Amino acid sequence: MAPFDLVIFGGTGDLAMRKLLPALLHRFVDGQIGTGTRIYGVARDARSDEAYRGRVREAVAGIAAADPRVAEAVDAFLALLHYRQLDLASEDGWPAFAEEIGHGPDRVRVFYLAVGPSLFANVADRLASVGLAGGGTRVVVEKPIGKDGASAQVINEALGRVFEESQVFRIDHYLGKETVQNLTALRFGNALFEPLWKAEHIDHVQITVAETVGVEGRAAYYDKSGALRDMVQNHLLQLLCLVAMEPPASLAADAIRDEKLKVLRALRPIGNGNASQMTVRGQYRAGAVDGQAVPGYLDELGGPSHTETFVAIKAEVQNWRWAGVPFYLRTGKRLAERMSEIVVTFRRVPHSIFGDPADGSASPLAPNKLVIRLQPDEGVKLWLMNKVPGPGGMRMREVAMDLSFAETFGGRQPDAYERLLMDVVRGNPMLFMRRDEVDAAWQWIDPIRAAWEAGHDAPKPYTAGGWGPSAAVALIERDGRTWHEDAQ
Amino acid sequence: MAPFDLVIFGGTGDLAMRKLLPALLHRFVDGQIGTGTRIYGVARDARSDEAYRGRVREAVAGIAAADPRVAEAVDAFLALLHYRQLDLASEDGWPAFAEEIGHGPDRVRVFYLAVGPSLFANVADRLASVGLAGGGTRVVVEKPIGKDGASAQVINEALGRVFEESQVFRIDHYLGKETVQNLTALRFGNALFEPLWKAEHIDHVQITVAETVGVEGRAAYYDKSGALRDMVQNHLLQLLCLVAMEPPASLAADAIRDEKLKVLRALRPIGNGNASQMTVRGQYRAGAVDGQAVPGYLDELGGPSHTETFVAIKAEVQNWRWAGVPFYLRTGKRLAERMSEIVVTFRRVPHSIFGDPADGSASPLAPNKLVIRLQPDEGVKLWLMNKVPGPGGMRMREVAMDLSFAETFGGRQPDAYERLLMDVVRGNPMLFMRRDEVDAAWQWIDPIRAAWEAGHDAPKPYTAGGWGPSAAVALIERDGRTWHEDAQ
Repeated sequence: MAPFDLVIFGGTGDLAMRKLLPALLHRFVDGQIGTGTRIYGVARDARSDEAYRGRVREAVAGIAAADPRVAEAVDAFLALLHYRQLDLASEDGWPAFAEEIGHGPDRVRVFYLAVGPSLFANVADRLASVGLAGGGTRVVVEKPIGKDGASAQVINEALGRVFEESQVFRIDHYLGKETVQNLTALRFGNALFEPLWKAEHIDHVQITVAETVGVEGRAAYYDKSGALRDMVQNHLLQLLCLVAMEPPASLAADAIRDEKLKVLRALRPIGNGNASQMTVRGQYRAGAVDGQAVPGYLDELGGPSHTETFVAIKAEVQNWRWAGVPFYLRTGKRLAERMSEIVVTFRRVPHSIFGDPADGSASPLAPNKLVIRLQPDEGVKLWLMNKVPGPGGMRMREVAMDLSFAETFGGRQPDAYERLLMDVVRGNPMLFMRRDEVDAAWQWIDPIRAAWEAGHDAPKPYTAGGWGPSAAVALIERDGRTWHEDAQ
Repeated sequence: MAPFDLVIFGGTGDLAMRKLLPALLHRFVDGQIGTGTRIYGVARDARSDEAYRGRVREAVAGIAAADPRVAEAVDAFLALLHYRQLDLASEDGWPAFAEEIGHGPDRVRVFYLAVGPSLFANVADRLASVGLAGGGTRVVVEKPIGKDGASAQVINEALGRVFEESQVFRIDHYLGKETVQNLTALRFGNALFEPLWKAEHIDHVQITVAETVGVEGRAAYYDKSGALRDMVQNHLLQLLCLVAMEPPASLAADAIRDEKLKVLRALRPIGNGNASQMTVRGQYRAGAVDGQAVPGYLDELGGPSHTETFVAIKAEVQNWRWAGVPFYLRTGKRLAERMSEIVVTFRRVPHSIFGDPADGSASPLAPNKLVIRLQPDEGVKLWLMNKVPGPGGMRMREVAMDLSFAETFGGRQPDAYERLLMDVVRGNPMLFMRRDEVDAAWQWIDPIRAAWEAGHDAPKPYTAGGWGPSAAVALIERDGRTWHEDAQ
């Protein structure tokens, strides 16, 4: 790949140190980042290149220790790194910064805004004023894009005044995960699934993103957000889109994003009239996770709050393909295990030839399930009914055909940021959210929030280390369905 | 299970010693054969019960050595065994035999005819004459049922004069194999497969039964039969029926056998006009199997012969479900490995979003395959296209989701005869061939043989240790398809 410049605003922050710089190091080791590339960390305080490199060296010490190829490459990688002091809220220092960065119009310049959204507008304007907004420039912004439709619009317009939409890369790292990518590969690379991928054959879909962590030191920040805005508006809705979208005509970014947008716009609205039936909010109380006692959310916050740390939603996609097929979404903090998965449950066989559960001559046939595990242990499982070996009648048992990525493909599974950063450099926006997608997601989310606020009721408490409030179980059980638990 | 009597005519033969008695021993160990049960070995020469038990003890020594539970049970099992001398071609000795066996009409009596078909008529008549043909009596006959439609009719009529059709159990041990059983479980226990199980979604089916053994000492016998009669008429056609049949309404024996019969009757006839396009005959020459030099068929026979030791057939089921879907069958001796499998190859995706193989931007997507392995390593594999992990484009690779019976269910896989013998005792004929099935199979087979004989050409030679004559490769390749080879 041609050498490029990558500038991380927020270059000393958590995201830069834990995710972006390690991802760039891995890409460097694999030969995707060539000589002449420059990587700038930018932050407010004074610091030498050497001091910055020293800090990055510490940040990547763990991955270097784990892999001799990485350890060997660290020095050469650090030589690509520079540090520049800049106050993103002010106008000072930008011309000198531009002089350093300034290059021919063909050179790719990536500005990664790993900073709060309140700074986006000023950074965009400053980049424009010093002539860094045109040509090869791309900006990357992290979620959350706003806290509701209106604030997202403000951000997107500030970016839109300066940049073309094709220059703006709204990152949702879930879309860079291998299994999420593989969902598209599975659906459209195999003739097996698509004929079954519709209401006629699918009973319902479950999407779970469960965390064991709490809000810890971030309680004050988190309290302004909550699980709906922090997780559902982006991650869970994006996953829902990838499961539900019509086959795109190609992998072209807009072909896929057009299809995702159609799904978001087909979501059945949830608002004052039905929020209490279709949604469940929860907030964790003290409990134990992995055998460790942990405090409750309000203890961590140090005050009262109606902010949800858990949400479950029964969503519906109102189109021909999905009419009557519920998409049950749930996400929360301080749950029993860290686990993200998509479960596609097929309909039961229309008729069992193996005996009738009603007269006790056989147990019921479990419906087939396709389980796409995003974390941990990325992989795919297909649950089928099989005959239990042995002479005698046809006793049937549910078994899983398993495809573990780690076992099948071996080696290290690349982190989502590795793919996404390289996609930005290549200018491929397929895995990034287009502005109209963000708007459509908020249009569905905002009325849910409004209905909750209008209802004045508090989130249901749940004990840390469980699976959320019992109302979330009731949400699915009253439809005669059950949250998936991996039986193997 | 209530005690029963089981009489093996041919009680000192190879089938009795290698298959039937070990199978009964395993069922005894598992508690399915209770006290009071009597097992008779019958043959022409004089022998005491003790001598017979000694011989059976030797025959099961291997399985007893491998499993202490079996070893412990051997003495008690041998105590159930008796030996009787009887000339099956004569009328002598039957009344005394009947007196010994004679019991109330409720007692199940199984007569297993592990002898040549020329003896069937006399045995049937003798059993009738001494009053052993009614009530609880069941007779088991081994393949081949005749050598063509006419001779099968003679046998079936001889049996039919004496027994009801429901008393006759025509055994095809392939139907007792776990994976063959599981084929029915997979097709009708899962909602996933049936919507895809038709010409719209399936490109073709392959059924392979490959042996490494030659004819060895049995050349003179084998030369009167050949692969078409010995393997295709029963095993391969039965497997084809289970793949192709419509969903039966229940597991009732006649519900399933009615559906199998419909398939046999829907087979496109092959005769003088098309046998040369639709079939390939082969005969092995000297070669090497598993690194051992082996002689050719004619060397073993010691004379000239046109008998085929290999056959490949392109069959077609002419009904709505399967129109245009070829079923490629092949079976042979002295092939490269001992392996039986059914491969269902689905159609290609109608449109690839992953780039165009024609312009070199992507490799073609392999079609999905469901591979049902009957031996060795019984199991099921589903071949899917997956994304190869890694940042960059969507590179796709074929991978297998695997369900190994041994790994999944553990323990010893019961032999087909264990199931089949117990089904006879229970009176469940589901896995046995009804008379009209045998007739329909011969009706399709006989014109193929007739066409070969009319053609006067010799079978194509193939080297022992390969995959049959090159014409068998051409048979499938000229349709743009390829015999399946397991890539993993």
